[in-house]
Amino acid sequence: MGGDHAPRCVLKGANIARRRWPEVCFLLVGDKAKLKPILKRMPRLRKVCDYIHTDAAIAADEKPAVALRSGRESSMRLAIDAVRDGKAEGVVSAGNTGALMAMSKFSLKTILGIDRPAMASFFPTLRGESVMLDLGANIQCSSTNLVQFAVMGEVFARSVLGSLKPSVGLLNVGSEDLKGNDTVRDAASVLKEFGPDFNFHGFIEGTDIAEGTVDVVVADGFSGNISIKTAEGTAKLYTRFLRDAFRSSLLAGVGYLLARRALKKLRTRVDPRRYNGAMFLGLRGISVKAHGGSDALAFATAIGVAVDMAKNGFVDQIKAELERYQDPGQRAVRAAS
Amino acid sequence: MGGDHAPRCVLKGANIARRRWPEVCFLLVGDKAKLKPILKRMPRLRKVCDYIHTDAAIAADEKPAVALRSGRESSMRLAIDAVRDGKAEGVVSAGNTGALMAMSKFSLKTILGIDRPAMASFFPTLRGESVMLDLGANIQCSSTNLVQFAVMGEVFARSVLGSLKPSVGLLNVGSEDLKGNDTVRDAASVLKEFGPDFNFHGFIEGTDIAEGTVDVVVADGFSGNISIKTAEGTAKLYTRFLRDAFRSSLLAGVGYLLARRALKKLRTRVDPRRYNGAMFLGLRGISVKAHGGSDALAFATAIGVAVDMAKNGFVDQIKAELERYQDPGQRAVRAAS
Repeated sequence: MGGDHAPRCVLKGANIARRRWPEVCFLLVGDKAKLKPILKRMPRLRKVCDYIHTDAAIAADEKPAVALRSGRESSMRLAIDAVRDGKAEGVVSAGNTGALMAMSKFSLKTILGIDRPAMASFFPTLRGESVMLDLGANIQCSSTNLVQFAVMGEVFARSVLGSLKPSVGLLNVGSEDLKGNDTVRDAASVLKEFGPDFNFHGFIEGTDIAEGTVDVVVADGFSGNISIKTAEGTAKLYTRFLRDAFRSSLLAGVGYLLARRALKKLRTRVDPRRYNGAMFLGLRGISVKAHGGSDALAFATAIGVAVDMAKNGFVDQIKAELERYQDPGQRAVRAAS
Repeated sequence: MGGDHAPRCVLKGANIARRRWPEVCFLLVGDKAKLKPILKRMPRLRKVCDYIHTDAAIAADEKPAVALRSGRESSMRLAIDAVRDGKAEGVVSAGNTGALMAMSKFSLKTILGIDRPAMASFFPTLRGESVMLDLGANIQCSSTNLVQFAVMGEVFARSVLGSLKPSVGLLNVGSEDLKGNDTVRDAASVLKEFGPDFNFHGFIEGTDIAEGTVDVVVADGFSGNISIKTAEGTAKLYTRFLRDAFRSSLLAGVGYLLARRALKKLRTRVDPRRYNGAMFLGLRGISVKAHGGSDALAFATAIGVAVDMAKNGFVDQIKAELERYQDPGQRAVRAAS
């Protein structure tokens, strides 16, 4: 029931996801009276759907703490609880981000050894795609938080992006060892000791993000959020300037018509809907946040992220990796090998 | 003598600046033996040039503290000292950023009431251009620093950008009052009390930067640096994707030829050389940093920034404004009026 176009776009998105991943079935949590009329026109989707009915929903502007206290019967909470209870393998919502984060953390709990879950997302780069975390779930981070984000991001890139030995970079104001604040410097010195199996690249700068210098960009939630939103805004600005350019003369307009097909490919390449779905990493279950403005295609992409994580057994993988890195004995063995 | 293409591009840039601002004359600080052969081919520039000779120059990778201690005879330091001594109205350098900042602060001193100077720059937006600070001079900032940056940025936008009542936004992870950390929240509550003359917009997000939601974007040096470099990287990525698109088919190539003139305008619109020149605000003199990779055009733009600041009496203006905002009596009068 969450997001600007719910529940229509959610169901349409599920319908697209059903065609892409025919093995998946859906547990719809929300107001049956609103869901049924829409589902009537999607008979194939209806066949692979089950329901949990509830009238209550978390408002977009609800404070996370309030949602946590008084939203126990909300669609968002019941969907998360379904993951906790093993009725679903993951939850996908386009609703209130803070509430989804707070409720997921409360209901699913964090993996042993993780203090706080992080929000991660893909983004397009010159070399393909990379993953970045944290995107705003943790405004103030310790160096330990950053180290945990680095490990979670590395496992994620291996299991979901399929990188063999993903490189991990710490976002900073320069690449030299002395740059930045104590938090990033301390985190870097811990990560450097992880040994040769962990591909720690060192510090990276803002320009490295789009260049794809590393597979995993690690940042505190404050600068990570600002950075990803700056990139989003800049891409929009560029698109708008490009449109203006093609409209500025008749000749340019004809040029546009000829290049239209190629430009469409460009649009697909940077289409934010292809990069929808921010994952909460570090939880004992899968929880994915779709953009509040998601259309059907964007919501389907977010479902796809949850499907990939479930198929690759991401939660178990991350648990195993954390144990490796947190046990000094194991670490020494790895370093020596 | 600083930057990747010095001193040739510096002199070529001065030659462009001479044509744009015929009233300006130049004090060249550096190795005369290297300057003279280049100047020979620029007789008109030579006529408006004076010299301070020195063999020493600060290396690009020199640590600021070392530069400060042992670079007293360097071209950078002598150029800054010339501003301090009233021999020049401002210094422009494409050299080592940290050294320029440290030496400028040491030699020029900060304006009374400013703890630390900030680094500011223009950038293109959907609505024209805005100014952002701090871009990395201050990695750890207090709320007082942010408030001072806001005042300096506002005066800068008024005196150099020519905005009548520039709006000022604090970069944060969301626009709601409760978002972010204590530092930004405390700074916001002080800025809100500045009264109706000061156009404080409140918090802005990363997406607001390129949208031009505000004329002045205020950030701590850590997230400000990451943000501006993320924007730079994203713009490069987009340019590269666009080039790929036009090269992907014959038809697209023909389309490019037809739209070439319009696309060139687009390039000009986002040309980073038009936004060259980061200003150190809060000093008792004008100090402008040109990008290390500046070509002649970019260096001329940086000179233009210094010229604008000098013509508009920026340093005196900022002093006067700071006194207004720091005197609680004045503030009360302003708030009541």
